[in-house]
Amino acid sequence: MTQTYAIGIDIGGTNTDIGLVRSDGKCIAHKILSTQTYSDAELYTDDIVSAIQNLLKENEISHIEGIGIGAPNGNYYTGTIDDAPNLPFSGKIFLKDLISKKIDTKVVVTNDANAAAYGEKIYGGAKDLNDFILITLGTGVGSGIVVNGQLVYGHDGCAGELGHATLYPGGRMCSCGRRGCLEQYTSARGIVQTYCELCKDDGITPPEKITCKEITERADSGELLAQKTWKLTAEHLGIALANAVTFSSPKAIFLMGGPVKAGHWLLDPLKVAFNENILSIFKGKTEILVSKLPENDVAILGAAALIQ
Amino acid sequence: MTQTYAIGIDIGGTNTDIGLVRSDGKCIAHKILSTQTYSDAELYTDDIVSAIQNLLKENEISHIEGIGIGAPNGNYYTGTIDDAPNLPFSGKIFLKDLISKKIDTKVVVTNDANAAAYGEKIYGGAKDLNDFILITLGTGVGSGIVVNGQLVYGHDGCAGELGHATLYPGGRMCSCGRRGCLEQYTSARGIVQTYCELCKDDGITPPEKITCKEITERADSGELLAQKTWKLTAEHLGIALANAVTFSSPKAIFLMGGPVKAGHWLLDPLKVAFNENILSIFKGKTEILVSKLPENDVAILGAAALIQ
Repeated sequence: MTQTYAIGIDIGGTNTDIGLVRSDGKCIAHKILSTQTYSDAELYTDDIVSAIQNLLKENEISHIEGIGIGAPNGNYYTGTIDDAPNLPFSGKIFLKDLISKKIDTKVVVTNDANAAAYGEKIYGGAKDLNDFILITLGTGVGSGIVVNGQLVYGHDGCAGELGHATLYPGGRMCSCGRRGCLEQYTSARGIVQTYCELCKDDGITPPEKITCKEITERADSGELLAQKTWKLTAEHLGIALANAVTFSSPKAIFLMGGPVKAGHWLLDPLKVAFNENILSIFKGKTEILVSKLPENDVAILGAAALIQ
Repeated sequence: MTQTYAIGIDIGGTNTDIGLVRSDGKCIAHKILSTQTYSDAELYTDDIVSAIQNLLKENEISHIEGIGIGAPNGNYYTGTIDDAPNLPFSGKIFLKDLISKKIDTKVVVTNDANAAAYGEKIYGGAKDLNDFILITLGTGVGSGIVVNGQLVYGHDGCAGELGHATLYPGGRMCSCGRRGCLEQYTSARGIVQTYCELCKDDGITPPEKITCKEITERADSGELLAQKTWKLTAEHLGIALANAVTFSSPKAIFLMGGPVKAGHWLLDPLKVAFNENILSIFKGKTEILVSKLPENDVAILGAAALIQ
């Protein structure tokens, strides 16, 4: 099969990672821009386009299928980034229009988690699936939902925000201004908070700073509070995933992100909690899986997948 | 425009309502079978087919586009009814196959709420909408979800069970064996339970038997507990609907069923609670509406819509 090429761009608050992706799902070259150094969206997109042109030249590629972009608050319908809190550009950035003016190819914009879900479908573990959900656990909790083989964008392009579904009404305060969001219990920060609360409950001064990785190391070394932290996290996530199933009855739910590296500490009790919380007609039908995308290139591959 | 015709069948535990529906959304004739009198699915479908043939003959219709069937636990993919608790046939009924053997036309089966949602799209208030949700409040709470103009069936045909999304982990016991399901707070029975609990909290003996209609009448006549019941119900539903928006970002959420007749007692505080609970990026974008389908023919029209 002849290989084709696409550009995948992962826009983050710190860096903008621009990758040249082959149709077999291999990212063969990167260029990195420092997002924070730009205050002007026009200059920023100028440099993105230059980087793309250099990538093509250096790799002797004369044709690409298009440019896929995953960005916080990226909107599929409008091709814009809408008020992303971590980016140096304020307001609405007409990313698709700005790039399309400078390079003649298909340009697609969406949010990071949607892109990752589509990456899972095109290059990862969901190749044969038409109904699945991908959950990203990290600083926040994101989601990309695929129904009938299509990403769920909603009427406004903003669908798939399961991290902000209310898990516990009146629960932990969330950065979104509401209470009890899933994100507050299963993001990296939420998991650390659970650990610190368990320490306090046990009369132990919680560590000033600790990461999910360290909580996993403590669990590995036999610390009960760390093990309990993962079990509680799994119970929170199990309820949320069972709820998601009542919505779209996916064949599989994929997980990705730092906390997933807790491995069996998270996944074993998660499968138990999921099974306990799921409605009987769905029981045993939906698999909980770890994303099969290569960790370092998830965002790039997801973005490139949008135009495959 | 030339009118075409379809058969819509609403299978309930008591009656099976078979309607002849014109493409302008008018149900021009009915036949009713008493579901409970059948213990054999073959005889039951024989009589359904006879009723259809009589309907066509009596109305001088020579051609129909097909037969749409809404049934509890109706499965779109398999054309079966799977272990519906209120029907006299146990196990899996191969409804589509049984009917297709006897009459040569397209046959589609789905659950009641999915059918109603599609009815809303074809004949009701969602004609121009590609992303919306319909919630049926009644004995239970059902939902039909439309994404990208298509009903969400999920990988197994069973999607759209928002009545059994967990609203309050560890909350009221549900008939499904789990706790805290939306259905336990916003179905007719759940609303009555709320009223009775409020009575007890106030030191008043709750009525032995009361209906949602009577609670509305009491609210109308100024009874504060009845008014508070609707306000609490609205608050429960507001959280659930805001959660649903994080999933599929619908343009509108339609409500139908007996409790919706509480009118402003439910709808006014519902809009407030929905707005308070919705994530900021979705604020002001999703309308809460009452279904525009004619109440008596909702199920028939929904079923017929499946094959339009």
